[in-house]
Amino acid sequence: MASSPTFCRIFTRFCRTLASAALKPTPEVHQRSVAKLIDGKAFAKKVRAEVKAEVTEWVNQGNRPPHLSVVLVGDDPASASYVRSKTRAARQAGISAETIRLPSTISQHELLDLIHSLNDSVSVDGILVQLPVPKHIDERTICDSVRPEKDVDGFHVMNVGRLCLDQKTLLPATPFGIMELIKRAGIDTLGKNAVVCGRSKNVGLPIAMLLHTDGDHNSGIGADSTVTICHRYTPPDQLKVFTKTADIIIVAVGIPGLIRADMVKEGAVVIDVGINRIQDEETGTYKLVGDVDFKGVSEKASHITPVPGGVGPMTVAMLMKNTLTAARGDIKFS
Amino acid sequence: MASSPTFCRIFTRFCRTLASAALKPTPEVHQRSVAKLIDGKAFAKKVRAEVKAEVTEWVNQGNRPPHLSVVLVGDDPASASYVRSKTRAARQAGISAETIRLPSTISQHELLDLIHSLNDSVSVDGILVQLPVPKHIDERTICDSVRPEKDVDGFHVMNVGRLCLDQKTLLPATPFGIMELIKRAGIDTLGKNAVVCGRSKNVGLPIAMLLHTDGDHNSGIGADSTVTICHRYTPPDQLKVFTKTADIIIVAVGIPGLIRADMVKEGAVVIDVGINRIQDEETGTYKLVGDVDFKGVSEKASHITPVPGGVGPMTVAMLMKNTLTAARGDIKFS
Repeated sequence: MASSPTFCRIFTRFCRTLASAALKPTPEVHQRSVAKLIDGKAFAKKVRAEVKAEVTEWVNQGNRPPHLSVVLVGDDPASASYVRSKTRAARQAGISAETIRLPSTISQHELLDLIHSLNDSVSVDGILVQLPVPKHIDERTICDSVRPEKDVDGFHVMNVGRLCLDQKTLLPATPFGIMELIKRAGIDTLGKNAVVCGRSKNVGLPIAMLLHTDGDHNSGIGADSTVTICHRYTPPDQLKVFTKTADIIIVAVGIPGLIRADMVKEGAVVIDVGINRIQDEETGTYKLVGDVDFKGVSEKASHITPVPGGVGPMTVAMLMKNTLTAARGDIKFS
Repeated sequence: MASSPTFCRIFTRFCRTLASAALKPTPEVHQRSVAKLIDGKAFAKKVRAEVKAEVTEWVNQGNRPPHLSVVLVGDDPASASYVRSKTRAARQAGISAETIRLPSTISQHELLDLIHSLNDSVSVDGILVQLPVPKHIDERTICDSVRPEKDVDGFHVMNVGRLCLDQKTLLPATPFGIMELIKRAGIDTLGKNAVVCGRSKNVGLPIAMLLHTDGDHNSGIGADSTVTICHRYTPPDQLKVFTKTADIIIVAVGIPGLIRADMVKEGAVVIDVGINRIQDEETGTYKLVGDVDFKGVSEKASHITPVPGGVGPMTVAMLMKNTLTAARGDIKFS
């Protein structure tokens, strides 16, 4: 056995080592928080179930089922696919739906005649002309030919005006769906900074309208946010200045990876409206992505919508809601 | 005479002093640059002269003079004063103008009847109902009762929708006037940061529309700025964040002194739409001021509109332009 002094030294050293190890903090496991997914698919399912329940009650009260007429001009596969989603969703909700297919060679005049007959038909509640239409047909003329009361896409100039004036009206489905997602996900909007990237008339502009306006008005949908509209002429450095101030970012531009992590504030809510079909560099297969660098931004945002499965399903769901609204005649159009 | 060495010393010292003085920079006279005044009164005079020339040509071509009917309900002195400015300006431009005075007790139904008869009259080109109307009358109903083609105030829901869709239409006079001021003052807008304080449907919202939208569209008036809409729910600290980024600030809120120098970037353009009647603390007399601390902000801004004499005169001038446009039937309303 070692001499007592040696033993003591060794023992002391051992005790010190033990104590030191006990006091040392456990090695940091670096944890990145991941944004809560705003599950558009799940929310859309709820909305569609609610619509179905209301349609059932409407029919039980002795009314005919709501009817949606979808006009599809030409053979574009993407358009045909969108139309199928819409008519399928309609039927699942108890809404009667038809697709009226027209060749791409149809004249504007003939298309207008068809729309006029649908306008006049007492058995049609909602009319939707799938866009885009062929180049020889003027889109704005077509959108304005649908009777506002049946304009389930909300594209008629009268419905655009009504939206801007906070009047209850048929809202375009994508912005309507975004507002619904925000509401159902419990996102605060009053006094928050919202940045809308993209100024299209069908998405960017109407969502900017709904986000900034007064929630007390009779449409009841205004979010009272401070809203910045960015677009193609916003210099990239300025875009970043604004997105970094944003509590809520809505991106509807059509540029994959436009919004990166370094452009986003910690805890921001990111709503990705982009639908871009890109080729995977490694596999060569095609996939759908949004306008947001999902992986990177997820590590900073508090909430994020995936693509697909975010805004897209809500668009279809709100179209069903609009069709029921049109059938019920809830809105007084002067 | 002093001895040569002394003279040399003195002379040398003198030369050094001279040289030193020559090389020393002149003492800094602290100069504060003052913002260039955007003289709305002067620009309005030009616009009205241009309208008068066009009206003269229109009449020389064998047309009757354009006719503006202004409907004034009740006895509010401010309203009466505004109406006088408008009809006076009309007559000076060769536009025939009448004021139809109605008692504040008139019913909504009777007012609508009058508007309908003006709508149907072939000798009336422009119809304006001076706002506000008495509380028992619904303003929105009145605005929507004027035929869009004669709606020189641009308040009809159809005209609101057309504005938002970048369609050539009768624009509300104040936003139209602001755009005209910006253009005539040579202010760059493309890609610039514009902040609109106030979201009223008659001023804040339409000016935000015009400022952000695409200048290539057929209305030709879009300014392609990045636009932020601030309003009553924008927290004060956030308002300052945004105004300090702004190249262009439009204030239409109705709060004297809302915009101070510390809220404004050096060289910003400041357009003050506010019209507030306040009592001078010292003299007790009343005076008109805007929403901007004019004195303080003038020392930072590159351009600023005075109140009065800025936006106000332009509003009347653009109303004249709208009346001529309505008379000529330039715009195709579907």
